[in-house]
Amino acid sequence: MIIVMNQNATQEEIKKVIDKLTNTGLKAHVSEGSTRTIIGVIGDKKVIAELPVEAMAGVEKTVSVTESYKLVGRDFKQEDTIIDVGGVQIGGRQLTVMAGPCAVESREQLLESAHIVKAAGAQFLRGGAYKPRTSPYAFQGLEKQGLEFLAEAREKTGLKIVTEVVDVESVATVSAYADMLQIGARNMQNFQLLKAVGRTNKPVLLKRGLAATINEWLNAAEYIMSEGNYNVALCERGIRTFEDYTRNTLDLSAVAAVKSISHLPIIVDPSHGTGKWKLVRPMSRAAIAGGADGLMIEVHPDPSRALSDGKQSLTPENFSLVMQEVAQIGAVVGKSLL
Amino acid sequence: MIIVMNQNATQEEIKKVIDKLTNTGLKAHVSEGSTRTIIGVIGDKKVIAELPVEAMAGVEKTVSVTESYKLVGRDFKQEDTIIDVGGVQIGGRQLTVMAGPCAVESREQLLESAHIVKAAGAQFLRGGAYKPRTSPYAFQGLEKQGLEFLAEAREKTGLKIVTEVVDVESVATVSAYADMLQIGARNMQNFQLLKAVGRTNKPVLLKRGLAATINEWLNAAEYIMSEGNYNVALCERGIRTFEDYTRNTLDLSAVAAVKSISHLPIIVDPSHGTGKWKLVRPMSRAAIAGGADGLMIEVHPDPSRALSDGKQSLTPENFSLVMQEVAQIGAVVGKSLL
Amino acid sequence: MIIVMNQNATQEEIKKVIDKLTNTGLKAHVSEGSTRTIIGVIGDKKVIAELPVEAMAGVEKTVSVTESYKLVGRDFKQEDTIIDVGGVQIGGRQLTVMAGPCAVESREQLLESAHIVKAAGAQFLRGGAYKPRTSPYAFQGLEKQGLEFLAEAREKTGLKIVTEVVDVESVATVSAYADMLQIGARNMQNFQLLKAVGRTNKPVLLKRGLAATINEWLNAAEYIMSEGNYNVALCERGIRTFEDYTRNTLDLSAVAAVKSISHLPIIVDPSHGTGKWKLVRPMSRAAIAGGADGLMIEVHPDPSRALSDGKQSLTPENFSLVMQEVAQIGAVVGKSLL
Amino acid sequence: MIIVMNQNATQEEIKKVIDKLTNTGLKAHVSEGSTRTIIGVIGDKKVIAELPVEAMAGVEKTVSVTESYKLVGRDFKQEDTIIDVGGVQIGGRQLTVMAGPCAVESREQLLESAHIVKAAGAQFLRGGAYKPRTSPYAFQGLEKQGLEFLAEAREKTGLKIVTEVVDVESVATVSAYADMLQIGARNMQNFQLLKAVGRTNKPVLLKRGLAATINEWLNAAEYIMSEGNYNVALCERGIRTFEDYTRNTLDLSAVAAVKSISHLPIIVDPSHGTGKWKLVRPMSRAAIAGGADGLMIEVHPDPSRALSDGKQSLTPENFSLVMQEVAQIGAVVGKSLL
Repeated sequence: MIIVMNQNATQEEIKKVIDKLTNTGLKAHVSEGSTRTIIGVIGDKKVIAELPVEAMAGVEKTVSVTESYKLVGRDFKQEDTIIDVGGVQIGGRQLTVMAGPCAVESREQLLESAHIVKAAGAQFLRGGAYKPRTSPYAFQGLEKQGLEFLAEAREKTGLKIVTEVVDVESVATVSAYADMLQIGARNMQNFQLLKAVGRTNKPVLLKRGLAATINEWLNAAEYIMSEGNYNVALCERGIRTFEDYTRNTLDLSAVAAVKSISHLPIIVDPSHGTGKWKLVRPMSRAAIAGGADGLMIEVHPDPSRALSDGKQSLTPENFSLVMQEVAQIGAVVGKSLL
Repeated sequence: MIIVMNQNATQEEIKKVIDKLTNTGLKAHVSEGSTRTIIGVIGDKKVIAELPVEAMAGVEKTVSVTESYKLVGRDFKQEDTIIDVGGVQIGGRQLTVMAGPCAVESREQLLESAHIVKAAGAQFLRGGAYKPRTSPYAFQGLEKQGLEFLAEAREKTGLKIVTEVVDVESVATVSAYADMLQIGARNMQNFQLLKAVGRTNKPVLLKRGLAATINEWLNAAEYIMSEGNYNVALCERGIRTFEDYTRNTLDLSAVAAVKSISHLPIIVDPSHGTGKWKLVRPMSRAAIAGGADGLMIEVHPDPSRALSDGKQSLTPENFSLVMQEVAQIGAVVGKSLL
Repeated sequence: MIIVMNQNATQEEIKKVIDKLTNTGLKAHVSEGSTRTIIGVIGDKKVIAELPVEAMAGVEKTVSVTESYKLVGRDFKQEDTIIDVGGVQIGGRQLTVMAGPCAVESREQLLESAHIVKAAGAQFLRGGAYKPRTSPYAFQGLEKQGLEFLAEAREKTGLKIVTEVVDVESVATVSAYADMLQIGARNMQNFQLLKAVGRTNKPVLLKRGLAATINEWLNAAEYIMSEGNYNVALCERGIRTFEDYTRNTLDLSAVAAVKSISHLPIIVDPSHGTGKWKLVRPMSRAAIAGGADGLMIEVHPDPSRALSDGKQSLTPENFSLVMQEVAQIGAVVGKSLL
Repeated sequence: MIIVMNQNATQEEIKKVIDKLTNTGLKAHVSEGSTRTIIGVIGDKKVIAELPVEAMAGVEKTVSVTESYKLVGRDFKQEDTIIDVGGVQIGGRQLTVMAGPCAVESREQLLESAHIVKAAGAQFLRGGAYKPRTSPYAFQGLEKQGLEFLAEAREKTGLKIVTEVVDVESVATVSAYADMLQIGARNMQNFQLLKAVGRTNKPVLLKRGLAATINEWLNAAEYIMSEGNYNVALCERGIRTFEDYTRNTLDLSAVAAVKSISHLPIIVDPSHGTGKWKLVRPMSRAAIAGGADGLMIEVHPDPSRALSDGKQSLTPENFSLVMQEVAQIGAVVGKSLL
């Protein structure tokens, strides 16, 4: 950490800051500029993080120079993490596609979706059994029955299942059915839930919060990993900005940014990211070209009958086109769809 | 809801949309403009909300004309809600001030804080026993012991206690100690938690999420109320924007906006809203002038020793000045500090 | 400036950075932390600002510790600037209110507006003769004729005139009629225009850009001052965020922030800031309570007939109520309306 | 336009709104829902746009259903616009790359840059002669001399020249040297400048404003086109959001969105869009995969000596790699680099 003193900080104020550092077991490295004094703080990261020096007289601001996370960083692990989900790999040279309806609506709808996405080449079936919804009066999901339909779809198609877990109570139940646990955007900083999935042995797909910086997102992954579960994949799904033509603003720069900071694989969800089915196809191509390890896409046998998010769901035909193009783009960046 | 058709939508596409509405038991009111057709949808709100017409051919967009919440709105209840917390009122002609440290750090720190804020005229003691933190390695709170210190502070000062509940598991425990349950910004859309506090008989302080629209915030309050707990106060604490001089952007317009839409009382937290103790005093005055029912302010006996948020905490002296000014501003808008 | 090196920067990379600094006439102050090296840069501000060290191998990021502006800062001038506009003061103990229609629409409308705002106590008449509009097909203002109506209104009422100048070409013309030149939000970084008004002897009202940080806004004021015109007042008018209930998000924290960094007076425009006439009254009170030196408010004899911004304009009656409350709030913070 | 009345609007209020419409020559199409009345407005777009009905009693809000632009839309022109710049085409099946230094710094630097980008396959040389800078004390460009160096580079390499024009005064001068005029992000709503370039016969590259919606951006293009200049290419260069890891958030969804709404070609600038040279390569690939017609990239012979934006400039080697990958991705989406 660097402490920037006010331009008119007194010698006494500077001394008090240095004393505080020394008393806390840290080292101060003082640098007197032409207009102000700057103090470099050297020592234990955790102690530094808790230091309330900005409340001291004469201090203008502090600047962090190290991140608070460890396990998610390239400093901790150089090589890319590859997650094995029952034989399907996420990360590395493979592209992973997770597709299916926004919500599990019925046995028929789910099985039909499963066969469609399997036929087009997806490895994972997605579908929400528990649905967090803005309004308490909106459809909240089939819950346990939805999980059973997902399990049946897996049996019938061999697809892996990824589905959302919305609270600590249901972690065990969802884990009994799913191959991978999804943490939704609204729960990205539900720290109790992160710790709970961190104590399971199930791979986790961690969606980025609507207003989460990359740094906060990586810290959320750190919560999971700090409990012992290292199988975390990140999922970029759009951030909230002033632009309202799209539902969210899909931040594809975050893909390359995450790749340079972290060893964790990263998936892109262009369906939630744009909110418009017409944009899903070009943004799927863009995501893979930009270095993503895979895609999460909403596909519905009949989007105009979907109980939620119909307007951002692809028809089977359009999904099939996406898969073909993704394979071609993947080849350019050295990745392939199995 | 209004359905706006594409400029080149065909008669058949328009007919299919109308048929879909009719088949779902809704009425369609068609209006042919000079360049495009618009369809007004009349019928049950809930059925309309679930309608995926945007996925239908020829549809450009849909526009909601009614909100999804009911109980929080002025249409449901005209007069202002006044919450009684053991004799202290929130809302109406009274100004309520909740003050204290960000986190409960020790028995001494808390009791000292309690005496300070009591002396200056606050009615509530705030202080986190469970602390949601961006990094898993930051101080996470004293948990149950923190609650015990809060209860002791209440006994010694008569102050009411408001403290955060971070998961469903601890709702019962926190309820056993606190007079009012706080839902933090990160949990504003933790719907399981909202429903859980909605099933208690404790008043709830619902902080606005970092990226929550006013509409989403009111829907979150609706989650609590729909479970039977009508004692909900809202708390504006800043939204996330591009401006980085302040920690967040305190959205004071939301106060008057909420007052016009909803009957619920609203509190402003200028400490988190600005992140800088120097801005807390002017923004406290501004909040009350703008119509807020009270304030939540971080006060610490010695901000430079605080374990969290020291830079946004007031000293006892500054807090006392705030209280004096707030009383004067309150008088102008017809409210008083007891 | 501080240069933060990568965790695995080599000694040679560090040496190259230091050499570059030394060769440019700057001093390097090296500080080796436990995990990375930090280099403090000491020397001429302007030279430092142009230094492209972030492109050098081994450099992670740079952090500015001094601002690029000078004349606008409290370091340059401690005491508050008070601008005298033909006897009316902006800043200091006086509250200044600028009111009138969004656009000058006709001689009758303007004169009527002028008498209304004069009667209620405003010192300035506002009204756009040149109107920047999102669409080329919207009403663009009466231009020169509008200026003549403004001048006539001044003669008849004694009000000062503040009106927008939209390009370098019309600076001389507008200056011939107006008492104060307004730079609109869209032109806050139209640097040629800033320099042009900086070469006049007319006071300038500089509106904050829709997406401008406080730092960029102050730098825009610096452009004007660096040309010799020190009579600059800032005007907060809302920033663009995700919230869409209001037209913009009025950032009242910026008032106190600007007051602590700069000596320039600051005015608040709650009409554009909120876009809703119902919010103008509470936000006017809040602005004054938060330390603003005055207000700019849209008032129209009949808002439902306004050619632009009718929905955010006050009726004469509501404006009169605002003036009464503003006077009362002003008294609490030691300011008065003349 | 649709007018949504308040839930408790009176019959008289509804009548007054309808009368206003009728008196203005518009038609009202009234639709009474279960809880509120909605009025569809039919008639002349321009008259509707200026209607201040939101200021009328009983009106809750209005909703636009048609956009204010005409010439930029697909409704006006179905097929893609292809701009011919002295034999080089922008749009259609060709990919256009504009590359070079942020600022023209010297004759040597520019000529060296020109040879580098020519060799790698770019068709345009970019380079600012007039530089809009946040601080008045930063390097502002070589101005006329910079233009002369650009013209010399064109002569020596055959590259087309695109350079920024920052005010109405210099439009003629810049036009005398450049093949294409660039409007920078800060000037996207400098309407006088837009109209001035609209009256030239030079193709225009219109950068998106930092906080501009797609709708506002298209309206800015409409300003240029409405003066008679139909050769407008759009340039996405990142929007301002809360994320601060990148300089801006490159909004690639805007590419596909613009393609579906408008016939104009669109270029992506990943250098300003990300602010980090390491992200330029993956985001260049992503832009082309997402449907962009070309790229604008900062390349500098020695980024660590650049007078501005060194940290986002590519070295000649990295630029060459980008060009190779772009050609491969282009092939997948049916486009080629000449």
